[in-house]
Amino acid sequence: MKKIFLNCDLGGENFGLYQIGNDEAIVPLADAVNIACGFHAGDPPQSMNKTVQLAKKHHVKIGAHPGFPDLQGFGRRKIDMLPADVYDAIIYQLGALSGFTTAHSIKLHHVKPHGALYNMACKDEKLADAIAKAVIDFDKNLILVGLANSKLVEAGKAYGLAVANEVFADRTYQSDGSLTPRSLDNAVIHDKDQVIRQVEEMINHQLVTTVTGEKIEIKADTICVHGDTVEALELVKAIRKLITH
Amino acid sequence: MKKIFLNCDLGGENFGLYQIGNDEAIVPLADAVNIACGFHAGDPPQSMNKTVQLAKKHHVKIGAHPGFPDLQGFGRRKIDMLPADVYDAIIYQLGALSGFTTAHSIKLHHVKPHGALYNMACKDEKLADAIAKAVIDFDKNLILVGLANSKLVEAGKAYGLAVANEVFADRTYQSDGSLTPRSLDNAVIHDKDQVIRQVEEMINHQLVTTVTGEKIEIKADTICVHGDTVEALELVKAIRKLITH
Amino acid sequence: MKKIFLNCDLGGENFGLYQIGNDEAIVPLADAVNIACGFHAGDPPQSMNKTVQLAKKHHVKIGAHPGFPDLQGFGRRKIDMLPADVYDAIIYQLGALSGFTTAHSIKLHHVKPHGALYNMACKDEKLADAIAKAVIDFDKNLILVGLANSKLVEAGKAYGLAVANEVFADRTYQSDGSLTPRSLDNAVIHDKDQVIRQVEEMINHQLVTTVTGEKIEIKADTICVHGDTVEALELVKAIRKLITH
Amino acid sequence: MKKIFLNCDLGGENFGLYQIGNDEAIVPLADAVNIACGFHAGDPPQSMNKTVQLAKKHHVKIGAHPGFPDLQGFGRRKIDMLPADVYDAIIYQLGALSGFTTAHSIKLHHVKPHGALYNMACKDEKLADAIAKAVIDFDKNLILVGLANSKLVEAGKAYGLAVANEVFADRTYQSDGSLTPRSLDNAVIHDKDQVIRQVEEMINHQLVTTVTGEKIEIKADTICVHGDTVEALELVKAIRKLITH
Repeated sequence: MKKIFLNCDLGGENFGLYQIGNDEAIVPLADAVNIACGFHAGDPPQSMNKTVQLAKKHHVKIGAHPGFPDLQGFGRRKIDMLPADVYDAIIYQLGALSGFTTAHSIKLHHVKPHGALYNMACKDEKLADAIAKAVIDFDKNLILVGLANSKLVEAGKAYGLAVANEVFADRTYQSDGSLTPRSLDNAVIHDKDQVIRQVEEMINHQLVTTVTGEKIEIKADTICVHGDTVEALELVKAIRKLITH
Repeated sequence: MKKIFLNCDLGGENFGLYQIGNDEAIVPLADAVNIACGFHAGDPPQSMNKTVQLAKKHHVKIGAHPGFPDLQGFGRRKIDMLPADVYDAIIYQLGALSGFTTAHSIKLHHVKPHGALYNMACKDEKLADAIAKAVIDFDKNLILVGLANSKLVEAGKAYGLAVANEVFADRTYQSDGSLTPRSLDNAVIHDKDQVIRQVEEMINHQLVTTVTGEKIEIKADTICVHGDTVEALELVKAIRKLITH
Repeated sequence: MKKIFLNCDLGGENFGLYQIGNDEAIVPLADAVNIACGFHAGDPPQSMNKTVQLAKKHHVKIGAHPGFPDLQGFGRRKIDMLPADVYDAIIYQLGALSGFTTAHSIKLHHVKPHGALYNMACKDEKLADAIAKAVIDFDKNLILVGLANSKLVEAGKAYGLAVANEVFADRTYQSDGSLTPRSLDNAVIHDKDQVIRQVEEMINHQLVTTVTGEKIEIKADTICVHGDTVEALELVKAIRKLITH
Repeated sequence: MKKIFLNCDLGGENFGLYQIGNDEAIVPLADAVNIACGFHAGDPPQSMNKTVQLAKKHHVKIGAHPGFPDLQGFGRRKIDMLPADVYDAIIYQLGALSGFTTAHSIKLHHVKPHGALYNMACKDEKLADAIAKAVIDFDKNLILVGLANSKLVEAGKAYGLAVANEVFADRTYQSDGSLTPRSLDNAVIHDKDQVIRQVEEMINHQLVTTVTGEKIEIKADTICVHGDTVEALELVKAIRKLITH
């Protein structure tokens, strides 16, 4: 059976005194965590170093989670950056996080853009290209994570990077394989059983049922669970069970 | 004769549309440039990448120039950061800059803290220790640059780092070997001939004449010239000549 | 003859040590200056207070020049902010600048959004509405400045605000009355004589010749000159003469 | 009996998605809230506007809570700013918050500096003077809140401002009337009964028992309760009772 890894956005999304999520509980259950790099969240003195150490302690892989330079908007607002500027912003953030992994003698495992940057790069070839190029210029052994079958995954392949097609346990899908935007009411699946059913279908049948009821093919190399919800812990445990045997 | 390298703070001190200094002219004349890392100046899309490429083109060594997180104050204001937070801030900034050197297949050469952080670390053992520890944890081959005979240089030696005692061409010295604070009128030497005389005395006799007229011993491994003054270019040329033969 | 006022974006676009433009020379020639409010440029310790005092000294009217929260991009990048967030960002920036006008016992005269926020609000009804509502909620006596005949001007009128239709001396126009985007080569008119001709036609005939050669109607209540170019001073003098005659 | 007002630091200390404290529950019990102004915490889109509305709804007075420009450090780190720069930073922040009070047709009631700026200004005459001057230049009807008998209170009086001597319910005092620094173990009183006893002694006898056991005189015009602790709500209720009859 194919190996699927569970990745979690929870890591390092603190800023100063502010705390989001319950990293301590979820990190041990994930295969990989995505750590914010200081642009949309995550600050060196308080969170990046701690989360890197937490991941190391639990032998969880570390991914960089670079985003737009937008603390106010938590990186969820589209910014019309030039691809060349996005390239530089990715290099900067990969470097910054790798400072901490280097200091703790561990390796970065993957790169997964955050929020609006992720969504835009999954659809926009030029952004996808800028990101993939930054990743390979920084470290050719990094895995690039993108929405299953997206432009971002394609760009990674074109540069010869290892890629991981990502699926979402608790997000609904459109007929074209894109995620339903968060601005719509049915973007997030709140019913736990439905989440489990969606994950089972993705893993065992490489299919997902879209909001219009069709079943479309989907390739799952990694599943994302968000760590900033109350139910995250329970959900992670359930999915953990599904993909482990 | 001892090899002394000329380092220049000019590199990368732009932010967005803002421009300081005339990097294009001065970089080729320096042995090394110190590049701001985004905390007190220097932003990824516009300046760090460009300055790294400029330095590479002219075979000039690249130093990281990390500072306090204080864009408004250009890193010149003391901030009462915990040593542990300074450690993290150094790791973050070294990592960020090394993103660009890695992408361009060159190596970081040294680390020289900027502004208030430099001044404080040269006198405060705990800050000096935090910085030296961050440098060796990140890359044990980096040279740590500090004020000649300062706590910062001592801390670097204690960790087994290569260190460089820095002297300033256009700053006056106190009897204890510290720089006259910029808040005092006689902090900066504006007369070009006096600057040249000071450099000659430092290089040929390992001495400097303090503001009170004494001559004290000073160890010069590297000379700093600031790139943000109108006369910088002319001065760099003159000092270049002095230390080359 | 109709009264047209000359407004200038130069004011207060400094950040820390960084300096753009030559405020000292241009402010006395303008009727009004637009002062950045700290989000895309302009910082309290160094520039907002000084520019307010400079304007007061020369009896030049003060406009707020609020922008997106984007220092790196100088407010020139589109950010996908919710109208409600734009409302709050405008209130915040109007308040901040009015702190300085209040301290110096003068009044704010107008509001003119900056950069990408200006361009977006001139075309997008919801953004235009959010801005106009923020202006009237803050001070109903402020004049709202927007591109001639734009959604922004319409929104201001709908709320009962005084509005000023703005024309640009050195920017080319499309057939629909919008500015040619800066990303295109012919966005800016570099030939001084052509700039003067365009201004004359706007003032004397309420017409502008578009990039395709047509003449379209344009309403000019105020003319904008940018202060961050070398030729700005000469241009301002020439236009000053035209509208004062 | 003398009127003492209960002020609460809870207001508006959110940033983007980050949330501190439980404003909804505590605001109705306070006489006044101190709202962060965007420099050390508090951002326009999400928190300043909401907290101003919350305070208005419950007829609670609004104070500005300006701090150092230091989001990472939550304004708790000393920054060596020039008094002239502190003056500008205060004007900017008072203006920004008054944008929201103006938009909601209410008045600012007082100014209380935050964190390290408060502590420094209570001991340093020049900072105290800069702050008091900024307050009176902005609005001469504002009350300046400072540590009882501090330089800040003195500076306010010297400018003719109304002042409020502040006492802390849950902080211990040194023999000179200053607060025990947070870096020391006994800085905060965790025992609720001891907090109540301290408040009673302050109110009924104008005395406080210092860490060395002496009783010293203290003048209480206002009591501060922090809103960012779990026990804050219970404590506020108890103190509310004490000062109301």
